[in-house]
Amino acid sequence: MATGSLITTYDGDPDNLDVPDVVVERLPLYVRVLTNLASDGTDMVSSEQLGDQLHMTPAQIRKDLSYFGRFGKQGRGYNVVALVAQLKGILGLDRSWNACIVGMGRLGRAIISYPGFAPEGFKIVAAFDADDGLVGTNVDGTRVRSLSQINHTVSEDGISIGIVAVPASAAQAVIDALVDAGIGAILNYAPVTAHVPDHVKIKNIDPVMSLQSMTYYLKR
Amino acid sequence: MATGSLITTYDGDPDNLDVPDVVVERLPLYVRVLTNLASDGTDMVSSEQLGDQLHMTPAQIRKDLSYFGRFGKQGRGYNVVALVAQLKGILGLDRSWNACIVGMGRLGRAIISYPGFAPEGFKIVAAFDADDGLVGTNVDGTRVRSLSQINHTVSEDGISIGIVAVPASAAQAVIDALVDAGIGAILNYAPVTAHVPDHVKIKNIDPVMSLQSMTYYLKR
Repeated sequence: MATGSLITTYDGDPDNLDVPDVVVERLPLYVRVLTNLASDGTDMVSSEQLGDQLHMTPAQIRKDLSYFGRFGKQGRGYNVVALVAQLKGILGLDRSWNACIVGMGRLGRAIISYPGFAPEGFKIVAAFDADDGLVGTNVDGTRVRSLSQINHTVSEDGISIGIVAVPASAAQAVIDALVDAGIGAILNYAPVTAHVPDHVKIKNIDPVMSLQSMTYYLKR
Repeated sequence: MATGSLITTYDGDPDNLDVPDVVVERLPLYVRVLTNLASDGTDMVSSEQLGDQLHMTPAQIRKDLSYFGRFGKQGRGYNVVALVAQLKGILGLDRSWNACIVGMGRLGRAIISYPGFAPEGFKIVAAFDADDGLVGTNVDGTRVRSLSQINHTVSEDGISIGIVAVPASAAQAVIDALVDAGIGAILNYAPVTAHVPDHVKIKNIDPVMSLQSMTYYLKR
């Protein structure tokens, strides 16, 4: 494991700093808890208090944050509002991101109408489907385009994120098309382990796998 | 961190063995990769080959599996079919589980019609909604019941798993009702961090948080 004393200053370029993916994945959770604390009017928070809320040790929290610089004051804890702002900047959450969605079946329609994206800065600005009967129709105010439009639309609309809501059999081809179009991050709802080049990030929404790790505890 | 030399024999009772949650969460991934290998006709697999497929070190794989007993033969690797069967038994995936779903809006309808659950042994046998206008209607062959039926239905139909697809504002109350009814595992699609007692497991499907950890890498 890495040394506990590593303190670095974050310079804005992820390539220059070897932050483990698991640490990056925890940061949004910190942002959420800190945002709640801020809206409750909390000024300062200790790593002990954060640890209580996140079910993590204070040492782990201090170590995670140390990858990005020195945030807290010894014995005083963290300034909540300042830490939220800094973490949001580090994660790129101080701006908005354009996303597109591929697959306008029942799941795709549920996703595009999900009210949780926009308030967090994620705008679904384009929708695609392979079904010619759907192309040209409107779903929640977004016109459905044909898959052949992916390349053009992604560059035209400055889209960085692709959401995949197609059947498993179609998923890899759709993901390849998104990667070819220049998409850098993919949220995949199809139940497949898809392949992407190293420079593209992919996260799978996989409800079956979530259920499969809980049954272990149900067995008793 | 735990010692690397811990070898225990799995006795079927999760309470008797201190297996870290993160290890349990990786087992379904092992099952999926091994199942694919088995259907490709692969007899034996080394921890190196598994590591290549899972982007993990062979040592990590051997350590994960060592929590549950001795599976591999030194120098020969693992018998694929036998290891799948053993891991499925450990995870409780050698049987089927009854689930219910609360919330029959667009998302709930997408979930109940998702074809990925049944082949893996998860049967959604009951659906609930707070809207009296939906109660009594059929969605994909499942009759929608009122929330007041949760308690009765869960015990009557032997339901262990609850899937929550209600708006954020309703989620905690629904989760409390499921816990009161005796549900042991909850798959929560509502964008809230819900509270459950220690004996209940909960997993959140949280697309925003998945997006928020990927934007870190998009920033360059």
